[in-house]
Amino acid sequence: MCGVFGVENNKDAANIVFQGLLSLQHRGQESAGIISSDTKNNITRVHRGMGNVSYVFKPEYLAGLNGDIAVGHVRYATGGKSSLENTQPFWFDCKHGRVILAHNGNIANDKQLAFMLQKTGAIFAHSSDSEHIMHMIEREKGDLETALPKALKKLNGAYALILLQGSKMIGVRDPHGIRSLVLGKLGKSYILTSETIAVELLGGKVIKELAPGEIITIQKGKIKKSYIFDKKDKAVCVFEQVYFSMPASRVQGQEVAVSRMAMGAQLARQMKGIKADIAMPVPDSGMFAALGFAKESGIDFEQGLVRNHYMGRSFIMPTQELREHLVKMKLFPIKTSIMGKKIVLVDDSLVRGTTSKKIVKLLKDCGAKEVHLALSAPKVISPCFYGIDTPTKKELMSTRMNEKDIAEFIGAESVTFIKINNMLAAVAGNEQNKKGKCGGYCAACFTGKYPTGLKV
Amino acid sequence: MCGVFGVENNKDAANIVFQGLLSLQHRGQESAGIISSDTKNNITRVHRGMGNVSYVFKPEYLAGLNGDIAVGHVRYATGGKSSLENTQPFWFDCKHGRVILAHNGNIANDKQLAFMLQKTGAIFAHSSDSEHIMHMIEREKGDLETALPKALKKLNGAYALILLQGSKMIGVRDPHGIRSLVLGKLGKSYILTSETIAVELLGGKVIKELAPGEIITIQKGKIKKSYIFDKKDKAVCVFEQVYFSMPASRVQGQEVAVSRMAMGAQLARQMKGIKADIAMPVPDSGMFAALGFAKESGIDFEQGLVRNHYMGRSFIMPTQELREHLVKMKLFPIKTSIMGKKIVLVDDSLVRGTTSKKIVKLLKDCGAKEVHLALSAPKVISPCFYGIDTPTKKELMSTRMNEKDIAEFIGAESVTFIKINNMLAAVAGNEQNKKGKCGGYCAACFTGKYPTGLKV
Amino acid sequence: MCGVFGVENNKDAANIVFQGLLSLQHRGQESAGIISSDTKNNITRVHRGMGNVSYVFKPEYLAGLNGDIAVGHVRYATGGKSSLENTQPFWFDCKHGRVILAHNGNIANDKQLAFMLQKTGAIFAHSSDSEHIMHMIEREKGDLETALPKALKKLNGAYALILLQGSKMIGVRDPHGIRSLVLGKLGKSYILTSETIAVELLGGKVIKELAPGEIITIQKGKIKKSYIFDKKDKAVCVFEQVYFSMPASRVQGQEVAVSRMAMGAQLARQMKGIKADIAMPVPDSGMFAALGFAKESGIDFEQGLVRNHYMGRSFIMPTQELREHLVKMKLFPIKTSIMGKKIVLVDDSLVRGTTSKKIVKLLKDCGAKEVHLALSAPKVISPCFYGIDTPTKKELMSTRMNEKDIAEFIGAESVTFIKINNMLAAVAGNEQNKKGKCGGYCAACFTGKYPTGLKV
Amino acid sequence: MCGVFGVENNKDAANIVFQGLLSLQHRGQESAGIISSDTKNNITRVHRGMGNVSYVFKPEYLAGLNGDIAVGHVRYATGGKSSLENTQPFWFDCKHGRVILAHNGNIANDKQLAFMLQKTGAIFAHSSDSEHIMHMIEREKGDLETALPKALKKLNGAYALILLQGSKMIGVRDPHGIRSLVLGKLGKSYILTSETIAVELLGGKVIKELAPGEIITIQKGKIKKSYIFDKKDKAVCVFEQVYFSMPASRVQGQEVAVSRMAMGAQLARQMKGIKADIAMPVPDSGMFAALGFAKESGIDFEQGLVRNHYMGRSFIMPTQELREHLVKMKLFPIKTSIMGKKIVLVDDSLVRGTTSKKIVKLLKDCGAKEVHLALSAPKVISPCFYGIDTPTKKELMSTRMNEKDIAEFIGAESVTFIKINNMLAAVAGNEQNKKGKCGGYCAACFTGKYPTGLKV
Repeated sequence: MCGVFGVENNKDAANIVFQGLLSLQHRGQESAGIISSDTKNNITRVHRGMGNVSYVFKPEYLAGLNGDIAVGHVRYATGGKSSLENTQPFWFDCKHGRVILAHNGNIANDKQLAFMLQKTGAIFAHSSDSEHIMHMIEREKGDLETALPKALKKLNGAYALILLQGSKMIGVRDPHGIRSLVLGKLGKSYILTSETIAVELLGGKVIKELAPGEIITIQKGKIKKSYIFDKKDKAVCVFEQVYFSMPASRVQGQEVAVSRMAMGAQLARQMKGIKADIAMPVPDSGMFAALGFAKESGIDFEQGLVRNHYMGRSFIMPTQELREHLVKMKLFPIKTSIMGKKIVLVDDSLVRGTTSKKIVKLLKDCGAKEVHLALSAPKVISPCFYGIDTPTKKELMSTRMNEKDIAEFIGAESVTFIKINNMLAAVAGNEQNKKGKCGGYCAACFTGKYPTGLKV
Repeated sequence: MCGVFGVENNKDAANIVFQGLLSLQHRGQESAGIISSDTKNNITRVHRGMGNVSYVFKPEYLAGLNGDIAVGHVRYATGGKSSLENTQPFWFDCKHGRVILAHNGNIANDKQLAFMLQKTGAIFAHSSDSEHIMHMIEREKGDLETALPKALKKLNGAYALILLQGSKMIGVRDPHGIRSLVLGKLGKSYILTSETIAVELLGGKVIKELAPGEIITIQKGKIKKSYIFDKKDKAVCVFEQVYFSMPASRVQGQEVAVSRMAMGAQLARQMKGIKADIAMPVPDSGMFAALGFAKESGIDFEQGLVRNHYMGRSFIMPTQELREHLVKMKLFPIKTSIMGKKIVLVDDSLVRGTTSKKIVKLLKDCGAKEVHLALSAPKVISPCFYGIDTPTKKELMSTRMNEKDIAEFIGAESVTFIKINNMLAAVAGNEQNKKGKCGGYCAACFTGKYPTGLKV
Repeated sequence: MCGVFGVENNKDAANIVFQGLLSLQHRGQESAGIISSDTKNNITRVHRGMGNVSYVFKPEYLAGLNGDIAVGHVRYATGGKSSLENTQPFWFDCKHGRVILAHNGNIANDKQLAFMLQKTGAIFAHSSDSEHIMHMIEREKGDLETALPKALKKLNGAYALILLQGSKMIGVRDPHGIRSLVLGKLGKSYILTSETIAVELLGGKVIKELAPGEIITIQKGKIKKSYIFDKKDKAVCVFEQVYFSMPASRVQGQEVAVSRMAMGAQLARQMKGIKADIAMPVPDSGMFAALGFAKESGIDFEQGLVRNHYMGRSFIMPTQELREHLVKMKLFPIKTSIMGKKIVLVDDSLVRGTTSKKIVKLLKDCGAKEVHLALSAPKVISPCFYGIDTPTKKELMSTRMNEKDIAEFIGAESVTFIKINNMLAAVAGNEQNKKGKCGGYCAACFTGKYPTGLKV
Repeated sequence: MCGVFGVENNKDAANIVFQGLLSLQHRGQESAGIISSDTKNNITRVHRGMGNVSYVFKPEYLAGLNGDIAVGHVRYATGGKSSLENTQPFWFDCKHGRVILAHNGNIANDKQLAFMLQKTGAIFAHSSDSEHIMHMIEREKGDLETALPKALKKLNGAYALILLQGSKMIGVRDPHGIRSLVLGKLGKSYILTSETIAVELLGGKVIKELAPGEIITIQKGKIKKSYIFDKKDKAVCVFEQVYFSMPASRVQGQEVAVSRMAMGAQLARQMKGIKADIAMPVPDSGMFAALGFAKESGIDFEQGLVRNHYMGRSFIMPTQELREHLVKMKLFPIKTSIMGKKIVLVDDSLVRGTTSKKIVKLLKDCGAKEVHLALSAPKVISPCFYGIDTPTKKELMSTRMNEKDIAEFIGAESVTFIKINNMLAAVAGNEQNKKGKCGGYCAACFTGKYPTGLKV
């Protein structure tokens, strides 16, 4: 998963992008980049680096990024190499002049496109499907805006794109709207970014989420053009609400925290009759679902595990032995809250099961009588080809085991996955009654049905 | 505030100290250090640096810290300069050979001691009262263990000390027990450290908290000696439980999270009859008090503010304008939970009031109808001379304003401080009935009465 | 100017390239890079950075560059941006698989090629003519070796190229042989590099300088193919011998130090009759010419200026005032050798004249009676389009002033430039008698006549 | 060996010290430090680090060193640990307030002093004899200036000291004058430093070398006091002129380059009748002696070896194999100058002989017919206790072997050491006729006779 943020018509462009990226940091901590342009003097400035936003953009680097338009990117590599060379945004010099590109998402027919492009003379300087998009655009006739929709129609996949060309900022959302792109306004400047909070925390106003298949062109504080280049069934990624997005961000008008509390309430209804003393989240991922669960079920909410926020994600323990202490050191148990209790432990999703297994063991070691794991995501049974880093089918424990086996594997008394319908009932803009099971949402990782028509 | 961690009789001494410091990171992020000794070959190794533990101890540095005994320190400067030179532990070469010292706390009669020491030929290479302790020891006759209690009796203040001399590790807790020191065991090694979690997360066993005035000498996995060198009225720092300690640590046998939930319940009783829709913590500091408040009052608990954990504490924003966005960017509001609500906002303490003011404004901007601030610490009216960084009297808003004025200043409908007795009723080991108002605890910052007899 | 170094068929490939680059460091200190390939597992590893070789290749980075074939590059940007993105070697993924490219030189018709390439769909991810070469290759039919000569024939310029494809290493020297490329052997491995010393210091054997227009393909310790793809008049860059190459390197069989001593002797003949007490080099650039001058003229050689080697070239002085002390701090005068003397000061070339002016002033301040500047390069009157960073015509003092004016400007009693014929008489492989003025050498910067037929 | 530099009464104090240290860089590359004081506001600022001056003092650090008085130090550890903690200058808080100390030299009776100091309560925070000097001063009665000479009289050793106290700068040279200290003036500011060039390159004026046993106190641009605190036989370190000092520095009025040329001439007279084609220096250490040799003997001077200045001294080669290439990579041979020649190779001194052995082999590999090594230092037979890093007696090859054996060991046809008298005849201020063999100079490393009366 990645995050993108662009702003135009603003003399502090790079500073604003930097702040925007800070609030999108949860979407990718591997690398970060900003490209800014001084459109009057036609000078582009680039800074990209491995690590999180505040590490990469030391004040002296940020100070060098002059310009009145800028775009930034935070990256968590989904497959492919995590390296400086693949750190976005990218810039390209081509017949359209210098074009800058930031991309969140994944092109599913990337391998075929790459083969075709190379066969006909293309050379790639990055290992990234995002570069292939740019090549596809170059193969089309006409100026950038003419070529763009023609090229995009040849892609199968999920993408939120921000392109800069001179003083123009162009935003694109894929025809199904799998990946999100939000339009905001800050003073006389437009913003394009992945989540609503990134606009609002700057004091800006969210105007709308781009429609699936929408291309929007903005220049010098004005929207020049906005149209649907390709219209397909809406299929917004539901996993964003389960896991990726910030709780304070809104998707289709509803705060993600509210969706998650509703998922927790749905789980409580699914588990009606469970005998438990307390409902407890895995911090911080299960927090809102646990609150929703507690309120709906009437079971007491407890914060039985506390996260040690001083231990960074990217931290590398020097020895294997130390690495094994890591999950312990991230979660401190409050024994008084745990000892002798029947616990409903609420988390978002279960992929490989190894972390859950360690947490259940920690609770049992602290004297928990029973642990019932409740998950606000259904079983993950199929890989994502649209930009979320899920394991291969073989690695997915849900494809191999039923609930009982899973419970046994992780050492819990029971495991409950939310039902797909119940999860979808918790999110906004759900059209399942009208359009079938996952109407309006992409739930391919839970159903194996891919909106763009992939056969896996 | 600082944190200390020592381990002996262990070939992985520095690695263990490193892990211990990671779990004490909340006690000081300004600088960190470890000194290890290879007692067989009589080689001492030092690494200290500015920044947090994982930043200072890059794997290559940690790998160099061979030895079978080691002590570490994390520091948050309480007055004095925050610089590499004052980063502990310190080592000294003296008539007792090489002595290594780590100190948490503050010597209240430090200025007088320094004057006397310099007058009689002492030279100081650090700007730290910890160095003065070492000088005092050197002025006494006899070996290190003979000199130690004689010197300590001349100190007025709060201290948890760990000293290393050859294969000996010596722990000291001040006569009032203001600062904490915990004895633990990990395999065949003893541990001395500031909090119980630092022992338990390593898989070790907590043996006891050192008694006020206790000196303990450990060597090669054996306790050689343990005695009370000076016995005074017990006065454990209550602010540790209000604010500093990890919720999962135990003080006098009770988890800090439990104390905080009890403080929240006490606040609920104080505020009985308040009309509110939700109780909401300032994350993360007010979490457990808010949970206790909600349970006792029956008011719904909501997580209306989410902390952005990707923004480091030490982060420096490049411009003033950006700095002002900072408190916003650290706290994301969940508007649906806030809008139209009468809110009890629970936090730990109020010192200058500026942060609270910003948070109240954020809630009001999101449509909160009323905000009632409830604080699990009483008014701070007097500076701490024992190692906690409180402002001078002039800066303390509580000394200048009553509750009504404070509420007006921060924009809240009301402000409620927990009563001192209620706070003390929430913590373990409280002997107030027996010994008067703050029996067994130091609450000098709330009362102005200093257990070591200072006149301010 | 840049330096290139490739080695194949060697399990320590990157280490050897690293050593090679160290001995080529004088050819470029702005940035350095190595790309290595593990040809069995088909894994490419890249490390590039700004700064000199030992700064960029810290042991931990070098250790990561496994592989049995590798190529490296040191760069001094000749126009264009000095940035990480333009740091070579480059890698490209294309129909020929992964191709790695290192390039020393400059393509003179680069702008036209770039325009044509972009018009027909090319996108550039670097700002470098070296990427354009790769695009040209991709536009040709057939495999890499078939396409290569076809593409090269469309280039006008100077280039020494090393390409890697799988276990193949391909070397190319431009049809005029303007830029150098040397073939060497080290055990069972072949080396391609810019100077002979880079082979010899490793203990390897120089086999030959590639012929102008030669392409050589090496694989697994064997020369697979070697032929002249395009034959033009030989025009080896003479400035290499005047300035760039290490004195210990051989060009056309003669050590550069020997050429420079011969230039000094030629200058002595030109200046016959000069009354001087000592001949003195500007260290280190004028050393060998000064020795040659002294021996031929019989005037005493003195080392009247000593260079302070601890002050790096790239060092940035914090204030303007300090920067002005810089030339002083780099050159320490030996006053006893200078005072009261008539001095012939020998240097290699005069471009803007500012440094010479400062040195002459330094000598006069130390009491020199006369200073006669003797230069082992003729007047630079025309820019280089083949890879040497000369200023524009306007900046070149030689185009605006005669010797008398120049002497006055720099404060010397006289200035003598070596005559073009005399310079050429000093270097090996000179065919001026056969082929006209600069036979066998490119002296375009001194004559304005460009061997590839440019009109300026 | 170390270098010291202090300046007072100057608002750019730290910048000037920084420049001074740059020109003293050859005296120590292990670590560097500057302490500056803003005497009006009584604020001291410290920056010290491992590495050379320009590495340690990045512009942002230097910019922070405000103040009107400052002292700096470059260090090459002479025994003892090379670590951040021993990096000078030191500061101490004591009865005299804050005192800052920079020390070049070594205290020979350091162990006895340390034992006595510790026995009477001193604690050491550095592992350096310089700290012991400070302790000795503190043990004396009276103010700093009263205590200073009393303490110094108890030291046996060599020292050039700069002390700062408030706006006072105090310089001390040891009673024998073994270590150097120069007084200079720059505008309205006085400078104290180790070599004359450090004053002159800043545009300052050298006033004098401090006399042996002189203490000078300077304050606000005025010399307050200057006197001889202890008068002993003058014994200036002759090794400074053989090896350490910059050729452009003056000792007792004569440039070191001139002394070295005279040493070369003395060697030529000693070796009269030698049949050789060329005289060649080991660069850069043998340069001036070789020039002097060539001129005196009439043998042609050649620069047959060129140093690669891009390879830093401190560079660490990643593998043993690479390390062995190191001496080769530092010295490039000019084969044409070497092949078939009988060579007099001139260097400064021979300690362990390993480097000379490699150089002789390099020359022979290039075809040298004979190599005669001429050394401008006599045999080193005794360790230095005054601050120069010589090996122990066992490691010194000169103590074990005669000239013939040494020549055989290093592979040369002959080895000639300058005779002590001849060396002393080459330097200024030599009083050997008046006072015996080494009159006026310390040549203990060559004679075993220590001016301060040590018995070894």
